[in-house]
Amino acid sequence: MSSSGPDNGHRTTSRRATMSDVARLAGVSIKTVSRVVNDEPAVHPDTAERVMAAIEQLGFRRNLGARNLRRGSTTGTIGLIVEDVGNPFYSELNRAVERIATSFGRQVLTGSSEENSDRERELVLEFCSRRVDGILVVPAGMQHGYLVPEMRAGTPVVFLDRPAGDIVADTVLVDNIGGTIEAVAHLVKHGHRRIAFLADSPDIFTAGERLRGFREGCVRNGIPFDESLVVMRTPTAEGVGDAVRRLLTGPNPATAVIAGNNRVAVHLLRALAHAERRPAMIGFDDFELADLLDPPVSVISHDVSALGRAAAELLFARVQGDQSAPRKVVLPVHLVARGSGEVAPS
Amino acid sequence: MSSSGPDNGHRTTSRRATMSDVARLAGVSIKTVSRVVNDEPAVHPDTAERVMAAIEQLGFRRNLGARNLRRGSTTGTIGLIVEDVGNPFYSELNRAVERIATSFGRQVLTGSSEENSDRERELVLEFCSRRVDGILVVPAGMQHGYLVPEMRAGTPVVFLDRPAGDIVADTVLVDNIGGTIEAVAHLVKHGHRRIAFLADSPDIFTAGERLRGFREGCVRNGIPFDESLVVMRTPTAEGVGDAVRRLLTGPNPATAVIAGNNRVAVHLLRALAHAERRPAMIGFDDFELADLLDPPVSVISHDVSALGRAAAELLFARVQGDQSAPRKVVLPVHLVARGSGEVAPS
Repeated sequence: MSSSGPDNGHRTTSRRATMSDVARLAGVSIKTVSRVVNDEPAVHPDTAERVMAAIEQLGFRRNLGARNLRRGSTTGTIGLIVEDVGNPFYSELNRAVERIATSFGRQVLTGSSEENSDRERELVLEFCSRRVDGILVVPAGMQHGYLVPEMRAGTPVVFLDRPAGDIVADTVLVDNIGGTIEAVAHLVKHGHRRIAFLADSPDIFTAGERLRGFREGCVRNGIPFDESLVVMRTPTAEGVGDAVRRLLTGPNPATAVIAGNNRVAVHLLRALAHAERRPAMIGFDDFELADLLDPPVSVISHDVSALGRAAAELLFARVQGDQSAPRKVVLPVHLVARGSGEVAPS
Repeated sequence: MSSSGPDNGHRTTSRRATMSDVARLAGVSIKTVSRVVNDEPAVHPDTAERVMAAIEQLGFRRNLGARNLRRGSTTGTIGLIVEDVGNPFYSELNRAVERIATSFGRQVLTGSSEENSDRERELVLEFCSRRVDGILVVPAGMQHGYLVPEMRAGTPVVFLDRPAGDIVADTVLVDNIGGTIEAVAHLVKHGHRRIAFLADSPDIFTAGERLRGFREGCVRNGIPFDESLVVMRTPTAEGVGDAVRRLLTGPNPATAVIAGNNRVAVHLLRALAHAERRPAMIGFDDFELADLLDPPVSVISHDVSALGRAAAELLFARVQGDQSAPRKVVLPVHLVARGSGEVAPS
């Protein structure tokens, strides 16, 4: 009845034995246990015997995940592709996705597309070739035909924050148009008629939709839509700074600015920090410390965690066999009035 | 010479054909190509033949990564375990690690330990059983004997931001003690003698080290080390708020506060937003918008990207066969004086 392993610290309680219990008792690595369990070569027969003895002694049974793994139907991972895992918006999304994935016993492979459609495709196909159980993607590109064979072969894909470009697929979005209309209405209510709109490149779905919302908001609130007050480009400190200098000076300056996303808002705040004239401002996307700035920043807020959660839950429904028609979910947004949007025109 | 696939959009240029080119030409998924290439069952013979024809036509050769994958020596992934992928500090780290991993053709599996050592162990062993090529871990726990069999079996592990508890392993840290000493010196130079120190639980290595630095800083700068001005606990808005109210009132209040990490700093700023008395403040870890607050927040800054980069580079040196003795790298930190640390005692 003596243990054959160098470490006899295992317990024979009612807790189900894990692969790492087996590894400890047999005095080998988990990798070796996994090889033995999967009948893979390259394990010395003596070692294999020791592992088998430990398995017997502990009553180890592989869990469902491992069995599926063996059958080739799951790798226990899902893939998440975003623009930049370092951007706080996406890291909050990542965390929400991870929570759901963990509850389904899955790990998350992540990748940053860097807003480059080639890189997005490369990452998605790389993840597919690693046989992830499903993919969540914030797409950089507008062409997703490359995904059709993967989806047909049974890899579910859910698009989040932005839709697929040219295929029908599960999608979870936020109400970009409605939110921007609300921002315009709020500024007009506070006396503004010259409102600038700064956002990312219109090739990006969310930026394009928010521009549509901006235009619609102008029409609905009876102010002219003035193209010269719209600046759409990749947000950089320099670009936003230049735009602000131009928009806030001259004979007929803007008195309010809508920042089309959290990156634009941060650059805008930095550009305005030393500006003579402080326009009213509303940002799309909430961000940390917005409430502690002077004035506190009003935003169109949406629940980023809810976005990640909804997309991940939809993905796992598909992983578990839900074959219903592709779904499109649009999550609500709401205005958080903190001060910067309530500044009257100077 | 006609193509056998439904899509003849392939190019026979000098670009090396990829698995997805083969999939497109054969009209199948990458998963199917991968099965054929790896001699796995469950592919219809006609399909397999079509794939083989496409491979021939395109002159497809699997790349080194795929060949290694076949030989079982690499899975093309590394694992990164942090406290919380949603915390901006860790997401910046994640991004830096991803950049290096990408340059080595690897993807990153991420997981949040939630400052729980059981969860850390579970994630690490889960990643090991998935045969990652290496592991980067910001440890939650202080006992890492469980990793020894994995490391012996050839899975390199690098600890970052915090060291291994009870084993010798590669480690990349920042200069926690030196940075906190510098913060104390700076505040003393500006007239402070009653300095409070708020940090995370002392069980956490970085918090414990920064406390040592705080104590050492008091000694070196000739002010008494007063235990009653030290509060070490998991940072929550309520906890920091309570501590601030206690420390800043009474007959002999603190006139300055050092926040032991970025989370403490954010809670502290929120607690101080409506305080009557604004103490001087220095945070450990820089954070976005610190420069736009009023007053701008002085911090002990370290290069989080450099931390991720150094750890990932060390890991890949190990993956590629570097067998030298375990290394310990300590990265420098520096004070960024922006205003909040230069407030005189009131």
